[in-house]
Amino acid sequence: MFGFKVIKKDNKTKARKGLLKTAHGDIETPIFMPVGTQATVKALTPKQLKECQAQIILGNTYHLFLRPGHEIIKHLGGLHKFMNWDRPILTDSGGYQVFSLSELRKITDEGVEFKSHLDGSKKFLSPEIALEIQNALNSDIVMVLDECPPYPSTYDYINLSLTLTTKWAKRARKAWNFSVEKDGRYQFGIVQGGMIKELRRKATSELIEIGFDGYAIGGLSVGEPKSIMYEVLGYSVEWLPEDKPRYLMGVGKPEDILFAVEQGVDMFDCVLPTRNARNGQLFTRNGTINIKREEYKLDEKPVEEECDCYTCRNFSRAYLRHLFHAKEILSSVLNTIHNVRFYLKLMEDIRKSIEEQRFSEFKRDFLNKYNKNSEVI
Amino acid sequence: MFGFKVIKKDNKTKARKGLLKTAHGDIETPIFMPVGTQATVKALTPKQLKECQAQIILGNTYHLFLRPGHEIIKHLGGLHKFMNWDRPILTDSGGYQVFSLSELRKITDEGVEFKSHLDGSKKFLSPEIALEIQNALNSDIVMVLDECPPYPSTYDYINLSLTLTTKWAKRARKAWNFSVEKDGRYQFGIVQGGMIKELRRKATSELIEIGFDGYAIGGLSVGEPKSIMYEVLGYSVEWLPEDKPRYLMGVGKPEDILFAVEQGVDMFDCVLPTRNARNGQLFTRNGTINIKREEYKLDEKPVEEECDCYTCRNFSRAYLRHLFHAKEILSSVLNTIHNVRFYLKLMEDIRKSIEEQRFSEFKRDFLNKYNKNSEVI
Repeated sequence: MFGFKVIKKDNKTKARKGLLKTAHGDIETPIFMPVGTQATVKALTPKQLKECQAQIILGNTYHLFLRPGHEIIKHLGGLHKFMNWDRPILTDSGGYQVFSLSELRKITDEGVEFKSHLDGSKKFLSPEIALEIQNALNSDIVMVLDECPPYPSTYDYINLSLTLTTKWAKRARKAWNFSVEKDGRYQFGIVQGGMIKELRRKATSELIEIGFDGYAIGGLSVGEPKSIMYEVLGYSVEWLPEDKPRYLMGVGKPEDILFAVEQGVDMFDCVLPTRNARNGQLFTRNGTINIKREEYKLDEKPVEEECDCYTCRNFSRAYLRHLFHAKEILSSVLNTIHNVRFYLKLMEDIRKSIEEQRFSEFKRDFLNKYNKNSEVI
Repeated sequence: MFGFKVIKKDNKTKARKGLLKTAHGDIETPIFMPVGTQATVKALTPKQLKECQAQIILGNTYHLFLRPGHEIIKHLGGLHKFMNWDRPILTDSGGYQVFSLSELRKITDEGVEFKSHLDGSKKFLSPEIALEIQNALNSDIVMVLDECPPYPSTYDYINLSLTLTTKWAKRARKAWNFSVEKDGRYQFGIVQGGMIKELRRKATSELIEIGFDGYAIGGLSVGEPKSIMYEVLGYSVEWLPEDKPRYLMGVGKPEDILFAVEQGVDMFDCVLPTRNARNGQLFTRNGTINIKREEYKLDEKPVEEECDCYTCRNFSRAYLRHLFHAKEILSSVLNTIHNVRFYLKLMEDIRKSIEEQRFSEFKRDFLNKYNKNSEVI
């Protein structure tokens, strides 16, 4: 039977362990989804992703819509077959990228017209088209098209934007209801409303009234101070239904994930582990390290002694430093393997600590060690 | 017992199957050595290299000397441990790169002074230093320092260069004889002499008189017409001792390898499979294909139906085309896996055909299919 179930609740915090059953397999939550923008998690083969124990990855509708095009992917059997990934995939709606990457955006009630950042061609996205693309990709979790207001924005702007986002959510849900082959697939709504409590409240009520299979919190980690993000996150999660999965979009750093899990968030995605890997920044339980540094020149130790990833079991920091400076492709590969595994192992340990009713202790111990030595990212 | 043995001779050609036992394992010849310039075969993990059935790889002394430095690699336990490759490694002497990559070369009897292409610092290489570096790397097969004359060069230039190369070879052998830990390791001399038969003859005699564990043919595939290369190769191999391995440096295309095997060559290296992979050119038994092309946009077939590599067993041409156009790292990874496997499978089939006394037929059938459709590389 498909669906989401909370398996265990922490007795001291709002953290929870859950299970989401999809057409492509089960996902244990809280979970982190490595980002596979262009039908590949950058630098990794699907085999390496599985060795990192990835349960689900994220694909970007905007990118796949522009290249190679969803029709082509559909023709080739869907995104799973195209990229040879047989586990679950969540796709965003493309909205975020339209507003951050493309030019000449013209937003109307109907949808958004924009210029492709690849070839300048005119494209159009609407709630219905965003769904159509995601249906063509056959992703397990589809997101509704929304507008993510930049930070900071005025009350009036956010309010207006929210009216549109809610309208679009309604239309997206209607289109979803008319979609075929929804078994083991889910549509999530996205809570916007900027950093304004009243508007977040309104957004949440409206989405719940429409009724989605899961709820995402969007519009955070867009440049606001961390204290504001934590505050908004705190009340936003509280208003969400207990029995549906909750997804905090585009977040984040290990400390943010721990905070969000504590508030009851189930799902995360972020480019941090993959992008920073390519820039030479590696995550460890003792804080991040920058593999470029002179101090690792003769360092025979693995990135992290306790890590079970291919990189840590086989290569020294000195070798990784060399690969980085020599601009070798293998540098990106090995660094990405480690960082992705770091994030997924963190989520494993979080789930275990919830299972064993010791999430707070885990969080405290983790942050004590991690913050002591971490470089500023 | 270490050493080289010819296991089987083809009864119609000079092709031969052999076995070279080294400190890091056995190599079946004829063999192709993927190039691992900077302590990595570009884009591949050692695990992927093994899945491609690589038996031995080549490392570049020049590059490792400049970065990270052989002292560092020695400190870290040698090149095998540094890059986590426990099978045999052959290293060149650095000479070829000094003459092709660096600036401000000053050649004296003593050695060659040059400027690093990385930071402009002055460096010095001599026959003894080239060996010292390779001993520090602990490579299984070390090459003597030589000068590779550019093509075309005058008789006088080549003759003068050869005098130096022979002097250096003598000194390199002397230094080798004083080296410790030579068990299961080999030093190869390099035949130069340009495209001049008389000088090639002279070079060969002088090297044989010094006495090496194997002999390389250098100075080919440097811009000369293919007919000249084939002619020089033909007589150069003939003069080499039967009981020592023969290595044709920096060659080449599948058709060149087949021709050289027919002349009795045992070992090959070339950047073609790895470099061309990164440029989107893939080798198949039906000729090369350029994965960039529009015609592969919807092509669900693997690169090569019969290929047993990870890429062919899991991904379509359409996907590989997408990755190439999207400039994804995975494009280089998957293409390299295929091309390296193609070369190594070709060598497997060559060995098998020699074993079964049908090398000529194999060569003919291979080239018939391969040449019919191959794009010009």
